[in-house]
Amino acid sequence: MQNNKVTIHDIAKALNLDSSTVSRALNDSPRVIQKTKDIVLAKATEMGYQRNHLASSLRKSKTNTIGVIVPRISRHFFSSVISGIEETAYEAGYTVIICQSLEQFNREKKIINTLMGQRVDGVLMSISMETKDYKHLEVLKKQGIQLVFFDRHCDIPNYSNVLIDDFNSGFEATEHLILKGCKHIAHFSGPQNLEIYKNRFKGYKHALSKHGLPFEEALVFPSKLMEEDGRKNSEKLLALPNPVDGIFSANDVAAIGAIKYLTSNGVKIPEDIAIVGFSNEPISTVINPALTTINQPGIEIGKAATALLLRQITKENDALDAQTIIMDSNLIERQSSKK
Amino acid sequence: MQNNKVTIHDIAKALNLDSSTVSRALNDSPRVIQKTKDIVLAKATEMGYQRNHLASSLRKSKTNTIGVIVPRISRHFFSSVISGIEETAYEAGYTVIICQSLEQFNREKKIINTLMGQRVDGVLMSISMETKDYKHLEVLKKQGIQLVFFDRHCDIPNYSNVLIDDFNSGFEATEHLILKGCKHIAHFSGPQNLEIYKNRFKGYKHALSKHGLPFEEALVFPSKLMEEDGRKNSEKLLALPNPVDGIFSANDVAAIGAIKYLTSNGVKIPEDIAIVGFSNEPISTVINPALTTINQPGIEIGKAATALLLRQITKENDALDAQTIIMDSNLIERQSSKK
Repeated sequence: MQNNKVTIHDIAKALNLDSSTVSRALNDSPRVIQKTKDIVLAKATEMGYQRNHLASSLRKSKTNTIGVIVPRISRHFFSSVISGIEETAYEAGYTVIICQSLEQFNREKKIINTLMGQRVDGVLMSISMETKDYKHLEVLKKQGIQLVFFDRHCDIPNYSNVLIDDFNSGFEATEHLILKGCKHIAHFSGPQNLEIYKNRFKGYKHALSKHGLPFEEALVFPSKLMEEDGRKNSEKLLALPNPVDGIFSANDVAAIGAIKYLTSNGVKIPEDIAIVGFSNEPISTVINPALTTINQPGIEIGKAATALLLRQITKENDALDAQTIIMDSNLIERQSSKK
Repeated sequence: MQNNKVTIHDIAKALNLDSSTVSRALNDSPRVIQKTKDIVLAKATEMGYQRNHLASSLRKSKTNTIGVIVPRISRHFFSSVISGIEETAYEAGYTVIICQSLEQFNREKKIINTLMGQRVDGVLMSISMETKDYKHLEVLKKQGIQLVFFDRHCDIPNYSNVLIDDFNSGFEATEHLILKGCKHIAHFSGPQNLEIYKNRFKGYKHALSKHGLPFEEALVFPSKLMEEDGRKNSEKLLALPNPVDGIFSANDVAAIGAIKYLTSNGVKIPEDIAIVGFSNEPISTVINPALTTINQPGIEIGKAATALLLRQITKENDALDAQTIIMDSNLIERQSSKK
């Protein structure tokens, strides 16, 4: 969270004023007297404050509050995204409030209502595993509240998104296993109403097809990708007549369930079965063997999504300007696939 | 999150009504017509709905929203507490909004202002490491917004708290090391303006004194207890003339930094140095050697704090009824101290 740029908070501190007074003064608000504006401007210049596009957001916004909706704060990926969101939002003078859908559609709807009631200036969101209907999101738009999706987006037009290339990452994960010599690769897939899991699955199939391996429905294990699912999938997988020699799991949590189940049942990883996860949760470096995974740049995704949202909040007219930003992701090779 | 009790949400689902309509109907609100009230009451009776004290909260509350302020959502302990909060709050028809102070006093003040602006009905909070002044919290009380502390509380009268016995847990952790034969035990301490760290430190000193071991200032390593602090403390500790044979760290994160640093520098854990952490973060079971630690019942703390807050919100008059609830904690022995 360190930053060398001078922010409105630094100016506020130097003058012993409230940050919101400083930003109002810099934005020439009628709520601040001229004398204060002069003092603030002088100090801002002295300290080398650079007004940026984001800072000017204060002019049009109403509550200086951004709502964030994630499935679960306890997933490292989501808490990293939130770190990035907090950093960019704070720098622009916004407070962030966070809500969890806990993967439930009904909670997600209630949260949207609460955030509208609180007149947040914009919403950043990753949808729940149950969300298949988007009416509650269209209500936001009608209220003039800007919305940017990150990670788990909806495949509907006119919304902005900050994503990684899930198809390509799913392809890379599977091809990695193939290049390590795996010929019979299982896939732990997530709910297919979510674009991210659909695309990871498509990437898996594409890698098989590119390398001339047959796609077998019996090797696909759909679930909600909890640790327990990883265990159960592994149990079923060991019972297959034709032994599996690789697993691409659409998240790390289920992959870790698999590692725990398989190693405690005498399966050698990676020798018997090589495993690749997805997300680079911190536990993936600590588990034995350490898990090969796809790294998603959570903090950068959070920053980019917030910057995009703030641009949408502050733009002069309401002409739609939906944008999709694809962030880089990369495979990190660890012991679980080092053959 | 499973629960067999019938909630207002179950009734709402059965009747295809909004939960807030159901709760208003059950609370005889003038905003619901009599016909709806009759239907809701009939269905509630049919389904065996038990009105509890919490549900009647809806009568007096304004926004049905609870604000939660934690230092960091990425700590497992805080995200477990939040799970408990969400469960109890949801059952009573409340939405939870979460804010992070990121251990900064200025952010904490801003968040308090935001939550007041949003007219939350109550606040559950664990203060930041920087918080030494409580004026911002007294403002909440003046606005009639109820406040309950959990874990990191303030030692000021007339506020409710849900805590564990940090003194006793610090004592237990240190005595455990002594009983394993450690005679020269270091303590990684947290900021002493926080009651929890002060009490863990006192427990450490009390255990030494009870067992006739001298207290040595040079063995106390104060820090903010990040992983990096655990590494740095370990480096300093290895340079001491008289070798340390045990570490009681006031959190798991710094203890894990120590395990990583010490094992990679050839120190055997627990043979050369035994280690006990605090909080039972999930990584403490996965690290090698697994970390002995104090388990705090996060979910139960969250539930108890929310139930207490909702009682305060709904009580008929505003007579202060501050209460401190102490929850059970226990030491979990793992490899890092098994001598």
